[in-house]
Amino acid sequence: MGPHPAVAAIRLAVRRVLHDVLTEHTPQLPPQTPAHLPPSPAPAPAGPGLPAAARPTPLVLVACSGGADSMALASALAFEARKLSVRAGGVTVDHGLQDGSAQRAAEVAARLTAMGLDPVEAVTVRVGRGGGPEAAARDARYAALDEAATRLGAAAVLLGHTRDDQAETVLLGLARGSGIRSLAGMAEVSGPRGRYRRPFLGIDRQTARKACMVQSLPVWDDPHNTDPAYTRSRLRHEGLPALEKALGKGVVEALARTARLSRDDADALDTWAADADGAVRDESGRLECAKLYALPPAVRRRVLRRAVIDAGAPAGSLFARHVEEVDRLITGWRGQGAINLPGRVEARRQSGRLVIRQG
Amino acid sequence: MGPHPAVAAIRLAVRRVLHDVLTEHTPQLPPQTPAHLPPSPAPAPAGPGLPAAARPTPLVLVACSGGADSMALASALAFEARKLSVRAGGVTVDHGLQDGSAQRAAEVAARLTAMGLDPVEAVTVRVGRGGGPEAAARDARYAALDEAATRLGAAAVLLGHTRDDQAETVLLGLARGSGIRSLAGMAEVSGPRGRYRRPFLGIDRQTARKACMVQSLPVWDDPHNTDPAYTRSRLRHEGLPALEKALGKGVVEALARTARLSRDDADALDTWAADADGAVRDESGRLECAKLYALPPAVRRRVLRRAVIDAGAPAGSLFARHVEEVDRLITGWRGQGAINLPGRVEARRQSGRLVIRQG
Repeated sequence: MGPHPAVAAIRLAVRRVLHDVLTEHTPQLPPQTPAHLPPSPAPAPAGPGLPAAARPTPLVLVACSGGADSMALASALAFEARKLSVRAGGVTVDHGLQDGSAQRAAEVAARLTAMGLDPVEAVTVRVGRGGGPEAAARDARYAALDEAATRLGAAAVLLGHTRDDQAETVLLGLARGSGIRSLAGMAEVSGPRGRYRRPFLGIDRQTARKACMVQSLPVWDDPHNTDPAYTRSRLRHEGLPALEKALGKGVVEALARTARLSRDDADALDTWAADADGAVRDESGRLECAKLYALPPAVRRRVLRRAVIDAGAPAGSLFARHVEEVDRLITGWRGQGAINLPGRVEARRQSGRLVIRQG
Repeated sequence: MGPHPAVAAIRLAVRRVLHDVLTEHTPQLPPQTPAHLPPSPAPAPAGPGLPAAARPTPLVLVACSGGADSMALASALAFEARKLSVRAGGVTVDHGLQDGSAQRAAEVAARLTAMGLDPVEAVTVRVGRGGGPEAAARDARYAALDEAATRLGAAAVLLGHTRDDQAETVLLGLARGSGIRSLAGMAEVSGPRGRYRRPFLGIDRQTARKACMVQSLPVWDDPHNTDPAYTRSRLRHEGLPALEKALGKGVVEALARTARLSRDDADALDTWAADADGAVRDESGRLECAKLYALPPAVRRRVLRRAVIDAGAPAGSLFARHVEEVDRLITGWRGQGAINLPGRVEARRQSGRLVIRQG
């Protein structure tokens, strides 16, 4: 008799990602990574010319909070790594935001070690205040994971985000209303040299929880996840269930699919905009309004957004409405003055050219 | 003292659309329609060469259910048409689905006439069963509006869809999970020769209701709109309010902006796919897998979707997962057999070519 279906599902998801990681680190295997993923990292320090025995075995880390999703992920990594030539380790981050968090981090580390992961680290971070409590915690966490991955020479860091997390991320992006890039959710592969992998984006939270239960893995429920002070928590416990009630049970899957499709669409349009950028400039490199006008609006707005960011506007403060206002210098020209943009950037139309610069 | 802000807002929205309609029907005015809107209809029967007096005044109709949105729209059309050289009429559709619907249609027609609209018609339709009750009613309604517009020679038919309706439409599209085209919601201009105009896509439902109240216009609340048997009604009264509670009051506006941006993005990508289509075929017009592979996934999937529909698959039954399966013949080729698609279409890979045809 095979493993419980939930356990089989999480293991399969991890196996696929480990196969990708191994493929990228042993260049003589036929590449399996589709062309649209970020470029593979450079070959591992020891190239294909060396005999197999001399090649170092890649290290894959799991980032584990002790919650059901990442505990399930850790268990599947420990199981699959044994069958492949992969070393498996784990990192847990102590955010220092709750009483007893240091002790909990030590417990999680002990559980990871008991699973057979090695090395295992509990890393303590100081959470700042930038961008709100959720963003600040995330920034501190990724900085710590980056540092640990680099120091330990990890080929990849697995993250436990599930399909439900992805659906929530899409809805959070939707609420920003800033276009399809913000609907693209989290990528399966991201970070420096494609370091972060999310094997569970196609696995629902319930499956991860079930996999922990049938494997008798103790899990920790972060009280933040049910605290209505947090937007994501409200979305999870009220927004999304109400949406499912209105639209049917397939909503989470539909949102996750929307993320995948939107990501590909946004990538293609960014490529187009980058190509178009050269074609709409005069010999001095200034943007020509007539040529911009001839572009499809979706491409033109991306060229404009890029130009405003290149001039010094912080991407995070530049909203769709700013870009639309700049666009009206092209499509609705009636002699309007300079437009003020974030980061003291201004855009004005002058003799048929668009001048975008920092004041 | 000017009109109430709500009344001013609905009148301004209608004035803008009437200006567009007039511009399209009097070619000597400078065109105001941005390049990305559908091509303007052919010039009105009497061309710019004729003296102004001989040119027929364009007729603009309002489609009015008697509800707050379309009553507000009718009142704004009646007011603005008087100030411009536009004739204003109205059509109300009796769907025959509720007791007393004929009498109600007659009452709505009488109210439109009292506003000064002329001609005014109450049209009775027979609602079929295709695609569920909401789709069947919509199909019957648009068929009747098309017929009336053609018979009366209307230049445009105004529809009362508000920003809230748009937000609901985006969420319904999101639940299908079939990509950004289904997030594009309703267009400001649509239908044969751009006949349908939606002046209120930037106006919220509350403003329309307020405008009726301050003008003492009686409105009819369709019980279907609060019947939880209807998906849209559940979304309106439960789903969207819960989402607003979780994400904040800006959700409706963000969804409406997502619709605009997604529409432009989808249009641009469709253009790219149409251009790419010719470049990925061999001299006999067959799709070459190697060339398809080199396209960005977002463009390739659109080329494939188009090819499957051209081969006879009904667009409404062709889902993202079908196209993804065909795509795997290109990106994940491992000798798999023919793929069965809706409309008895099948896709197979043969000697490096993709063969898509009806069985």
